[in-house]
Amino acid sequence: MKKTVIVDPNFRRMDEIFSPSDQKRLHDVVDVIWGKDEPMPQADFLRALPAATAVVCADWRYGDVLRQASNLRAILSVSGGFPQALDYEQTYRQRIRVLSAAPAFARQVAEFSLGLAIASAREIAYGDRLMRRGEEAYLWHGNVGTYMLYEQPVGIIGYGSLARELHKLLLPFGVKLAAYDPWLGNGYLRRQGLQPLPLAELMATSKIIFIMAVPSAENEAMLSRELLELAQENALLVLASRAHVIDFEAATEMVLAGRFKLATDVFPVEPLGADHPIRQAEGALLSAHRAGSVAGGMYDLGEMVIDDLEAIVQGLPPRRLQLAEPELSRRYVSNRAKSPPADET
Amino acid sequence: MKKTVIVDPNFRRMDEIFSPSDQKRLHDVVDVIWGKDEPMPQADFLRALPAATAVVCADWRYGDVLRQASNLRAILSVSGGFPQALDYEQTYRQRIRVLSAAPAFARQVAEFSLGLAIASAREIAYGDRLMRRGEEAYLWHGNVGTYMLYEQPVGIIGYGSLARELHKLLLPFGVKLAAYDPWLGNGYLRRQGLQPLPLAELMATSKIIFIMAVPSAENEAMLSRELLELAQENALLVLASRAHVIDFEAATEMVLAGRFKLATDVFPVEPLGADHPIRQAEGALLSAHRAGSVAGGMYDLGEMVIDDLEAIVQGLPPRRLQLAEPELSRRYVSNRAKSPPADET
Amino acid sequence: MKKTVIVDPNFRRMDEIFSPSDQKRLHDVVDVIWGKDEPMPQADFLRALPAATAVVCADWRYGDVLRQASNLRAILSVSGGFPQALDYEQTYRQRIRVLSAAPAFARQVAEFSLGLAIASAREIAYGDRLMRRGEEAYLWHGNVGTYMLYEQPVGIIGYGSLARELHKLLLPFGVKLAAYDPWLGNGYLRRQGLQPLPLAELMATSKIIFIMAVPSAENEAMLSRELLELAQENALLVLASRAHVIDFEAATEMVLAGRFKLATDVFPVEPLGADHPIRQAEGALLSAHRAGSVAGGMYDLGEMVIDDLEAIVQGLPPRRLQLAEPELSRRYVSNRAKSPPADET
Amino acid sequence: MKKTVIVDPNFRRMDEIFSPSDQKRLHDVVDVIWGKDEPMPQADFLRALPAATAVVCADWRYGDVLRQASNLRAILSVSGGFPQALDYEQTYRQRIRVLSAAPAFARQVAEFSLGLAIASAREIAYGDRLMRRGEEAYLWHGNVGTYMLYEQPVGIIGYGSLARELHKLLLPFGVKLAAYDPWLGNGYLRRQGLQPLPLAELMATSKIIFIMAVPSAENEAMLSRELLELAQENALLVLASRAHVIDFEAATEMVLAGRFKLATDVFPVEPLGADHPIRQAEGALLSAHRAGSVAGGMYDLGEMVIDDLEAIVQGLPPRRLQLAEPELSRRYVSNRAKSPPADET
Repeated sequence: MKKTVIVDPNFRRMDEIFSPSDQKRLHDVVDVIWGKDEPMPQADFLRALPAATAVVCADWRYGDVLRQASNLRAILSVSGGFPQALDYEQTYRQRIRVLSAAPAFARQVAEFSLGLAIASAREIAYGDRLMRRGEEAYLWHGNVGTYMLYEQPVGIIGYGSLARELHKLLLPFGVKLAAYDPWLGNGYLRRQGLQPLPLAELMATSKIIFIMAVPSAENEAMLSRELLELAQENALLVLASRAHVIDFEAATEMVLAGRFKLATDVFPVEPLGADHPIRQAEGALLSAHRAGSVAGGMYDLGEMVIDDLEAIVQGLPPRRLQLAEPELSRRYVSNRAKSPPADET
Repeated sequence: MKKTVIVDPNFRRMDEIFSPSDQKRLHDVVDVIWGKDEPMPQADFLRALPAATAVVCADWRYGDVLRQASNLRAILSVSGGFPQALDYEQTYRQRIRVLSAAPAFARQVAEFSLGLAIASAREIAYGDRLMRRGEEAYLWHGNVGTYMLYEQPVGIIGYGSLARELHKLLLPFGVKLAAYDPWLGNGYLRRQGLQPLPLAELMATSKIIFIMAVPSAENEAMLSRELLELAQENALLVLASRAHVIDFEAATEMVLAGRFKLATDVFPVEPLGADHPIRQAEGALLSAHRAGSVAGGMYDLGEMVIDDLEAIVQGLPPRRLQLAEPELSRRYVSNRAKSPPADET
Repeated sequence: MKKTVIVDPNFRRMDEIFSPSDQKRLHDVVDVIWGKDEPMPQADFLRALPAATAVVCADWRYGDVLRQASNLRAILSVSGGFPQALDYEQTYRQRIRVLSAAPAFARQVAEFSLGLAIASAREIAYGDRLMRRGEEAYLWHGNVGTYMLYEQPVGIIGYGSLARELHKLLLPFGVKLAAYDPWLGNGYLRRQGLQPLPLAELMATSKIIFIMAVPSAENEAMLSRELLELAQENALLVLASRAHVIDFEAATEMVLAGRFKLATDVFPVEPLGADHPIRQAEGALLSAHRAGSVAGGMYDLGEMVIDDLEAIVQGLPPRRLQLAEPELSRRYVSNRAKSPPADET
Repeated sequence: MKKTVIVDPNFRRMDEIFSPSDQKRLHDVVDVIWGKDEPMPQADFLRALPAATAVVCADWRYGDVLRQASNLRAILSVSGGFPQALDYEQTYRQRIRVLSAAPAFARQVAEFSLGLAIASAREIAYGDRLMRRGEEAYLWHGNVGTYMLYEQPVGIIGYGSLARELHKLLLPFGVKLAAYDPWLGNGYLRRQGLQPLPLAELMATSKIIFIMAVPSAENEAMLSRELLELAQENALLVLASRAHVIDFEAATEMVLAGRFKLATDVFPVEPLGADHPIRQAEGALLSAHRAGSVAGGMYDLGEMVIDDLEAIVQGLPPRRLQLAEPELSRRYVSNRAKSPPADET
């Protein structure tokens, strides 16, 4: 007999994350409760919870009901973070795994981040704007201030699943990689081929800096004005995780002053204010939180969810999504309060 | 005693291609004749030629004087092509090697081409334009029509030094690679990990197509309207070598009609006419022949020139620049007549 | 104040696993209790346990005492398996992490397994024996029955930490990889670049088969005579985990009959009986359980232990050793009963 | 009309180098003259030469007849070296390409060399001998004096096609690579990721040394007793090209004295004398010139020959075999005089 699983993906949609063939596979693997785009009514949820082996959801908006979930083995989030309102201590007590879909964003965001880096360092988007204005300069006249990634000192802030995927894409460029991640030991980083560096030293010695740290209670505006001032002249900062981790206004000022280049997919408030000065900074490359929502990538997410449901109903550990760990789950925060309620990565 | 070498880099400049330390090394390795930015006067050139072991130049504008070059072992071009006005038959008879600096452009152009590909497929430059206009769409609303490179069928047209370097950068994306190159055998291409395909089949089966073929007498407008019409809906064409090889006006029409995306670093006439319709095509990504003139890359060129001069004066084969081959040298052409005289790749 | 950690590595020795500089680092990071080569007396252990944050040990020979370990956060095994006599349910209840040093064996065993594979397929050890007997054949006369790894179909049975490391070493050979692992889903395996195959199909289609499955209650003699008979003529089996998983006597018969080659680092009983017929099989390559005890590798183990202790005392998740998972820990078995008591991997 | 090509592979055999399907392809591509295993009679050869576009042969035993070869475009050797008795100056005058099949040996020899290295460093063949004698030691008792390749300093002497292929196989081991090659410039070596070193420094700083230099007039016994004495205690020398380049007797003495390990596929005289002391050295790993004659590799050779014939008859440069270069062809020597006449690599 198939195990029952509550599937309540809202804010995502069923056909956004499950390809047609995966929709079918989902129903082959488990008995799906709900499985609709609209938010599941609380009463329905509570009725289904006691029998459910797993809950697939976008956030935890069901309240303090875990004790009723006597058969629950796993909570699978279809967002890139961990549910905020969940009582993690209780999940550990009941030995319920909490899983985040962060790995489904790794390829999407890594590719996008590399694209931002090349497009900024080589001034591809800026050059395109100049051509549309009829102001382009050809050949080396158009390459004042550009540089290649090859063999550059590159710093990575936050070596999680996004950064590990980016790492693979950077290998053929022969860059010298340094990393700062307070949640990872130096031995681990060295074995991955990265030089562990304190944040200030990384800022001062890297030509290109990828900011991929997940937001936490501890890292708000971690990249302060003082640290930003350490950046090399004409360095490049690529901001791929959350604006939470950087003093965004200080960075904006410095980009406008020509101190360094900034490519960013995220902003302190989204949508970004129409008159925010970063919008007109020539040294900036701007993207509307689009790194992690490409169609093929979202199908990846659905595939991972089903793969892990399949493992769980077979009594095996899930291997594709990311497991919440007791030491870290209480530290994760999101910057959602400032974001629009409808759509999230 | 040091061998004498004529160094007449114009249209390039000495300090464009030789880093300060390489300037010194050049003088350590050989006795430099001329070595200035201005074009060498013909009389000076003819006086120096009989004793010269090598000539470093940007093109061959010295006429039919090879028979006076009784000690000449090599002609090293500092451009990405082979000198057009040279009597290649006579160079083979006198066993003079003719070398092109094409390999010095490989990294620059490969990185830029990958940047164009990601920035087009993920609509990075387009998204940046939208943000500057205040018209951006966030998250998946801003990802209609975007796609990842990962695991895509990718076709390469022209598998020379640029393409071989690009190949290394594409490996971590797990793409399925096909190639069309009439100058290379199928066995060679297969051993490199590429599926050899006829041009029409490559056009029809690839999601992303890199056009890297060097211009030749045989490939003018090789990518005809008929072949372009085979491209998949919303495919991406990246044009990195010369507009010579494509029916550029047909491609422009099709981009404007939304049939496929086009990222291009080259144009049929440069500077591109101010009112060329491609300038306003939203599906296009435009670059003013800037892929191969980045500062670090030009120093690479100078290093390769000195490395090969060093080999030549030691009686060893040069290993860094690209050797003209009898079968191919008569086929190379450039599209320079249509380009401005002052600056060239 | 430093946390206290019980370090009782017997059957290993302190200076076997900790380099001189790591010995110092261990004492810098934690307050070491015991830390000697001899087994820690039970009374001393029980006295130290209540205050201990972690226990480093080779096996769990302390009995049912976990309830006294009120501060215990982790048990770190210095062997390649998980402690057998431990009450895992109780560790999960107390939220004590149990860690195995299996990852410290990955490089050692992967390199050794590749060495066994090349040495068998190319008959390197056999050729060396012939030269010592004065019976060698030169050039192609000495290559009857040999083959290259390049582009071969290769099957991996058990895709754990050893196999993942081997995978990296096999990549440049361009092999076609298939895998059988009942604890891993097909989606996971495919994303790693492996074709998931049922065991019988893997046996029948692979030219080279790496057997790396950890022994479990379910896989005793999993490679039965019937499955072995599916192997291709002159295939190669490399046995790197435990003889537990194969019908070793059937395999021996088939190697003696010339059906396939067998390279093995493990035996059903160790030391192997002096008159076991495999000892004289020309098609066999024999190794005395030596893949995972090379000096540099054992220092790796010590480094990983200290790195993870450092993480644990800082309140971070350990990242280098392998975590016991509820679904799998009850399935692991060892074949130690049949092994000599003194030394273990 | 098909071009005529003389195919006279002796000492090789037609079915040794051409797979059945390649035999057919050969006849599709060109009009084959001779094409038998026996040496082509001189009279037949001279009759066919004037019309021939190419000659496929194992060595040049036809004398000073090139002036009669008025249509000859290429001489393709099916051995790993260049024909010794050929008048290279005349080939350059007539613009005849001379091609060696060295690249067909690259994979075979690289794989074998890596196998020799792991089997020596980890004492795989020695351990197998001990097991057959019933003298094996288990676990770390059997690993005194062994070491891993991972992260070792590795030196390569002679960075030709064999070494370039080996380089790819060594990359996942994270070794630190140095190279000595007097025919290659430092800039070229650095760009490949190798540190160029003088020979003495390479000998002193490398733990593992691969000797892959082709024999030349200049490098006889280049690895003299004095240089060998610089090797680190318990270093490993892998001899993969020719005994010509090393003082083999000095090396033998030092291996017998336990100074370093030696793995060798070649000997000063082949067959090696029955009582040569290296035959009983426990620190040696011995192979009867078998690295480059594995069946799959020889078919590779045939495929490359046909691929290059196909290019030549189409007026394209050959891309798979190795071209003789004026600067180097006069320097190549073989050590064949001391070898048996019948079989050669």
